[in-house]
Amino acid sequence: MHNEELECRAALPPMTAIGVIHTPFVHAQGSPIQAVMDSDAQGTVEIFPEFAEGLKDVAGFERLWLIYLLDRASAPQLIVRPYLDIVEHGIFATRSPSRPNAIGLSAVRQLGIDGLKLYLASVDMLDGTPLLDIKPYVPEFDSFPASRAGWYEGRLRPDVVADGRFERQHN
Amino acid sequence: MHNEELECRAALPPMTAIGVIHTPFVHAQGSPIQAVMDSDAQGTVEIFPEFAEGLKDVAGFERLWLIYLLDRASAPQLIVRPYLDIVEHGIFATRSPSRPNAIGLSAVRQLGIDGLKLYLASVDMLDGTPLLDIKPYVPEFDSFPASRAGWYEGRLRPDVVADGRFERQHN
Repeated sequence: MHNEELECRAALPPMTAIGVIHTPFVHAQGSPIQAVMDSDAQGTVEIFPEFAEGLKDVAGFERLWLIYLLDRASAPQLIVRPYLDIVEHGIFATRSPSRPNAIGLSAVRQLGIDGLKLYLASVDMLDGTPLLDIKPYVPEFDSFPASRAGWYEGRLRPDVVADGRFERQHN
Repeated sequence: MHNEELECRAALPPMTAIGVIHTPFVHAQGSPIQAVMDSDAQGTVEIFPEFAEGLKDVAGFERLWLIYLLDRASAPQLIVRPYLDIVEHGIFATRSPSRPNAIGLSAVRQLGIDGLKLYLASVDMLDGTPLLDIKPYVPEFDSFPASRAGWYEGRLRPDVVADGRFERQHN
């Protein structure tokens, strides 16, 4: 085994939540399948006080990347049938939550900020989701409008919502 | 303290590398500051064999999100002076690597795939970086070309490269 592979397979440093995401979605079922598919869904982020300083100048960005833990996703699957298709795909060709590392990524719209609280639109995560990072959305880094999108092409309809297929089942 | 805050502050599940990213950049100094700033930089990703199945249909996407561990970033800072500015900003208003959770995000261009190996352009991460996730780039979810970009506006020049300011110093 290659040295670099061995190093990468070593234990990675633990992640810490920097805040909590609040949304109207308590269960996956019925929630939008990606931020932009229901731009009316509003939510908030509450940043923990020890990270307050990091919010300086966040107000200037129309959109923010939220990177979060998909804490209620079912166990990882390498092959999934996503909400938008009837065919199976590899997990890395989908945005389905049951991933080897349960990391979620959504470009949300910033409506305002008040102290430790961010007001957001286009949210699609579940209420109480642990937030890992906020990054500013910068079109020069992030926006590629004509990028060919594999099996997603022609599949995106704004009325598609999630069912429970990737949600951890509780008793 | 609110229940949800307590839950989010609990220990988060550990992350595992799904592969290694190879690039021409051994040190931060001189490397591009974001994927798109040097679209000629080529690299590869080697996926670990146990995740092979997850690559099915990844080939159809022109761009991929790589989510990775910024494993050589210096200790987290809440206020930083990023490469592109002479003014300090909150870490969450920048893409600087010294973040509370050292998670990197880049939209790379897919040149091809051969078994467990992805050939990529527009890479900006350091050689040997542990890969955490691959997500397909879907313009409907990810592309917002006119999004207002705070202090970044007017600052982006393709000739700006990194210096060593966010790199962990070795003896």
